[in-house]
Amino acid sequence: MIEKIEKEAKKYFVGSDGCHDWSHVERVRKLALMIGKKEKADLFVLEIASLLHDIKRKEEIDSKGSFCHATEGEKEGRMILDKYNISDKQKKNICHCIRTHRFRNNDQPKTIEAKVLFDADKLDSIGAVGLGRAFLFAGSVGSCKMYTNKEKEIAKLDKDMTFKEGDSAILEYEVKLKKIKNMMMTKAGKEIAKDRHNYMVEFIKRFWLEVKGKK
Amino acid sequence: MIEKIEKEAKKYFVGSDGCHDWSHVERVRKLALMIGKKEKADLFVLEIASLLHDIKRKEEIDSKGSFCHATEGEKEGRMILDKYNISDKQKKNICHCIRTHRFRNNDQPKTIEAKVLFDADKLDSIGAVGLGRAFLFAGSVGSCKMYTNKEKEIAKLDKDMTFKEGDSAILEYEVKLKKIKNMMMTKAGKEIAKDRHNYMVEFIKRFWLEVKGKK
Repeated sequence: MIEKIEKEAKKYFVGSDGCHDWSHVERVRKLALMIGKKEKADLFVLEIASLLHDIKRKEEIDSKGSFCHATEGEKEGRMILDKYNISDKQKKNICHCIRTHRFRNNDQPKTIEAKVLFDADKLDSIGAVGLGRAFLFAGSVGSCKMYTNKEKEIAKLDKDMTFKEGDSAILEYEVKLKKIKNMMMTKAGKEIAKDRHNYMVEFIKRFWLEVKGKK
Repeated sequence: MIEKIEKEAKKYFVGSDGCHDWSHVERVRKLALMIGKKEKADLFVLEIASLLHDIKRKEEIDSKGSFCHATEGEKEGRMILDKYNISDKQKKNICHCIRTHRFRNNDQPKTIEAKVLFDADKLDSIGAVGLGRAFLFAGSVGSCKMYTNKEKEIAKLDKDMTFKEGDSAILEYEVKLKKIKNMMMTKAGKEIAKDRHNYMVEFIKRFWLEVKGKK
């Protein structure tokens, strides 16, 4: 059944950009299962929720954010799930995971599975992979730079911002990536986040030394 | 005079992509002066050559590589230099630096200044900055990914390749960045390259561990 759902989910990612492509789902799935084992979560729920969590992401990006991919993803996901023999309780949990994996409003992840998926998804934004994604994302947005030297200043404003032309990869780090380690909801997630965060800090330190020609 | 030439050079970079923008020139300039001091090079020649080395880069990219920015950059650079009171010997050397900074054909950097500029330019492609540029570049090329898992296989073919749609940032590393440390022409360049190379190797190791959910 998981294989079938995987096949269905994959279709939504044809033509996705390099930050939100199927490889993101694969990484989130691995992280979620790894953390889920430690947190004694329902791995069946977790694996399916991982596969389905971003199925509406491409459409959200293509429509320039006219809807929330988590909310719409839940609806679409429910339609897929209804085709399979899954208990109502698990189905409800999977839907809850999809809906709350973003957690930007008050719709908080409540089940352990939703908390694990939230952590796994956010963890993919930090560490070496997260840095790669941030630079790749900056490149995919017109005329974006590696840095502008205005990052610290903008980050101080502490606004919830959407990445736009003229921004930089380093701004993404200063405004978003830096804060992720404090958002973790599970113990195992916190541990991985700490390690990935520290790695990023070292990378950024070195990055600036190189920029100044000191390394 | 340097300030005036800098102002002239900067104009060529309006609207450049984040990999080949003015910040690249600034980094190359710093590296070139740092290495140049150690190598007892003519720092005046080196600084001007750094400022002018990529003035035709944007046009080359915009024209999808219909000419070589090093060869054309030499011609354009000579026209700029002719407006200033620079000795013929130095002017000749600056032009030689611009023409040979790319070194893909038999036109090898011969003066110590040309060797230093070559090293400085290549060094900006490796280390933390080089990794950032590789991911950003992949993002700027349509539908490029972080990785495709086919990188080692393609790299084995050992072809001189141009980055195109469907390629990945990791391919850039496997095909180009990995080899740069062996291209250095100066002692100081070699030392910096070794350090930057080792840093990249560690980054890539960690990157794959994270991809596999093992970090």
